Amino acid sequence: MSHTAELIAVGTELLLGNIANTNAQVLSQSLSALGVNVFWHTVVGDNPDRLKEALDVARKRADILITTGGLGPTYDDLTKQTICEAFGKPLVLHPDILEDIRAFYESALHVPMPENNTQQAQLPEGCAVFDNPVGTAPGCAFESDGVHVLMLPGPPHEMETMLRRHVEPYLRRLSHEVIVSRDIMTFGMGESSVDELLHDKMVRMTNPTLATYAKPCEVRLRATAKAPTEEEAQAMLSPVLAEVQAVLGNIIYGIDVADLAACCHAQLLRRGLTLATAESCTGGLVAEKLTAIPGASAVYRGGVVSYWTGVKANVLRVPADILDAYGPVSEQCARAMAEGVRTITGADLGVSVTGAAGPDPDERGVPVGIVYIGLATPEGTFCRPLDFGRRRRDRIQGLAANHAFDVVRRWLQGLPVERV
Amino acid sequence: MSHTAELIAVGTELLLGNIANTNAQVLSQSLSALGVNVFWHTVVGDNPDRLKEALDVARKRADILITTGGLGPTYDDLTKQTICEAFGKPLVLHPDILEDIRAFYESALHVPMPENNTQQAQLPEGCAVFDNPVGTAPGCAFESDGVHVLMLPGPPHEMETMLRRHVEPYLRRLSHEVIVSRDIMTFGMGESSVDELLHDKMVRMTNPTLATYAKPCEVRLRATAKAPTEEEAQAMLSPVLAEVQAVLGNIIYGIDVADLAACCHAQLLRRGLTLATAESCTGGLVAEKLTAIPGASAVYRGGVVSYWTGVKANVLRVPADILDAYGPVSEQCARAMAEGVRTITGADLGVSVTGAAGPDPDERGVPVGIVYIGLATPEGTFCRPLDFGRRRRDRIQGLAANHAFDVVRRWLQGLPVERV
Repeated sequence: MSHTAELIAVGTELLLGNIANTNAQVLSQSLSALGVNVFWHTVVGDNPDRLKEALDVARKRADILITTGGLGPTYDDLTKQTICEAFGKPLVLHPDILEDIRAFYESALHVPMPENNTQQAQLPEGCAVFDNPVGTAPGCAFESDGVHVLMLPGPPHEMETMLRRHVEPYLRRLSHEVIVSRDIMTFGMGESSVDELLHDKMVRMTNPTLATYAKPCEVRLRATAKAPTEEEAQAMLSPVLAEVQAVLGNIIYGIDVADLAACCHAQLLRRGLTLATAESCTGGLVAEKLTAIPGASAVYRGGVVSYWTGVKANVLRVPADILDAYGPVSEQCARAMAEGVRTITGADLGVSVTGAAGPDPDERGVPVGIVYIGLATPEGTFCRPLDFGRRRRDRIQGLAANHAFDVVRRWLQGLPVERV
Repeated sequence: MSHTAELIAVGTELLLGNIANTNAQVLSQSLSALGVNVFWHTVVGDNPDRLKEALDVARKRADILITTGGLGPTYDDLTKQTICEAFGKPLVLHPDILEDIRAFYESALHVPMPENNTQQAQLPEGCAVFDNPVGTAPGCAFESDGVHVLMLPGPPHEMETMLRRHVEPYLRRLSHEVIVSRDIMTFGMGESSVDELLHDKMVRMTNPTLATYAKPCEVRLRATAKAPTEEEAQAMLSPVLAEVQAVLGNIIYGIDVADLAACCHAQLLRRGLTLATAESCTGGLVAEKLTAIPGASAVYRGGVVSYWTGVKANVLRVPADILDAYGPVSEQCARAMAEGVRTITGADLGVSVTGAAGPDPDERGVPVGIVYIGLATPEGTFCRPLDFGRRRRDRIQGLAANHAFDVVRRWLQGLPVERV
């Protein structure tokens, strides 16, 4: 039997447009993967009457209700009280949870627990408790007349941690099919071109399915199979992966990797090589993406953000005649930056980014969107010239950073790097 | 009389989690500013029965219904048909709109119009037409028994263009009140502590209202007033801002500024000062946040990501005896990094971050969560020691980056920097 879920987000900040309901997106992806139909998302404010109304509507049309938000310690956090009234469940104090919250404050945050956090230890009688290792509000779940009610905290990282630890196992026990997805990660071709190459294949498939998702600077293909067991689903996916690889070739940078930075990190680690970065227009974005990965220090030596031309000369040792003759946004400067950062850090590879991210052209009149990626290696130095046109600043920075990683991963895979 | 709106997003891609409902966020911000209450967001798939059900529920509890999505030319775009059936309006062909769509294809896209686009020129009889200069699907609005129904396209840039051109003027004619909000930005105190200090005030206010919103590493307070004119609303907000400032003092870093990076950027610009960054555990995050701001080059010289200890010594010139005696995660090293980057870049101020972001303790056993922020200035060097406890890596990095900006903004504002 297949289950139907409704997601109810509680929070006036959503109705005022202060934040987007990204929790609904993350939950929907997870529920789809578990084979649960999501037919409705609802958002209500911190208002018990309207939340009550939403619950009354939802329990008639879905058998899994998942709320996010309203579990905080403040007076407008009313989700638990309202749900308990609607479903006739008393709220009871869980002394062990109160101790957990107090311990979180004292040992992790090193401050005493404010008194109003006590209400976070009140939970519906007889519920399953979802502990919250990254915050103070525990979540919970109970079943009432065939309807499963799950309450999760609103802050996205708390919600997501609880989703993986507790909600997915809880829902998996309700379901009799598994859905397995594999993500084929590509960089260097637009969504409509990928779509055209695979369109006939995609429309004719029903199980497994194949779909494209455009992320800001790359295209992810997701192959999904439904089967009674994980092993059967995986076996159904293998020929699909092989076929996509035959069509798309080396624009595929990995399967089930998070992004290009993670791909580079894994390959550098495997090869025992280190990397350094020299960034101008990306302003530290390449370094930041790499160091967001736990264990980055094994492969990343460090980098220079050479925003001001003087830093290119004095810190990165870009020769003055290159800066004079070609300017800081040039192929010559990109090569010298990559070589410079490789030398001063002693890394095996140095990657550089210099360009005009806008909104104004660079001081020498180089138009917005022109970017050069340099790569210094033991085998010589390479450069990939790019023209992103008059895109928005953050898009140019994001694209340039991804091209820097793509240059590194192509070199590591023995592919030509100067063109995509 | 104040209006109540419900936003209904139509699209199975939302229920599968392929995209977030950012249209609801953009619309909600706009409607709040126009004095329209948004009490509900609903998302349904490309399914006429469930859309019909959503409309039946919504028309009873709101007098403005705004749909997004389902106006495209393909077989699953059913919004107009379903709404016309629900409200008993016939769909009629608008020949002038058909000509507009044909012209858009031929002159902007340089291809002939596919035949299935003809249905985009079918609109409810007697409706107001919202033209779409950036796409093919026009929007529209009609009134039926006191309920206003507005249909907008799903692609965010088409929706937003139509919102500014047509929807806002349409709604402004219905409304007699404006809502004005001011954002009071704070850093250095948790949400529940801020809440405790202002709780009595917040619960007793109705117009203006005051609410707290916790962002990952800071707390924003939003004061909102409703009045017949913008001037009156602003006048109602002034005493609230003054009172909050009296209670919270210098944890407030600005009013209506985007974040701490923008606050530092504006103050550096005003003072004509330049900054440089030396980052270890934040790995370029401080640099990246600053250079995300257009015009960063006027105040930012550049920085060093000194991930590997050798980079601290060779590039930042941290003395070997400091590294030997105290290690890279130490107050002494933070001070030397800040001074080093100030020297090599020639900036007025050098800010540094060194710490253990986890998941493992640093090589000398410094526990996860220990971070030092250094600040080198013409008046001497300062250090703020921090202990974030065993938080997640990305949280420690985010908090540390914000503390770096907070140290800079406090110094620029003449406040003590070594403690929050």
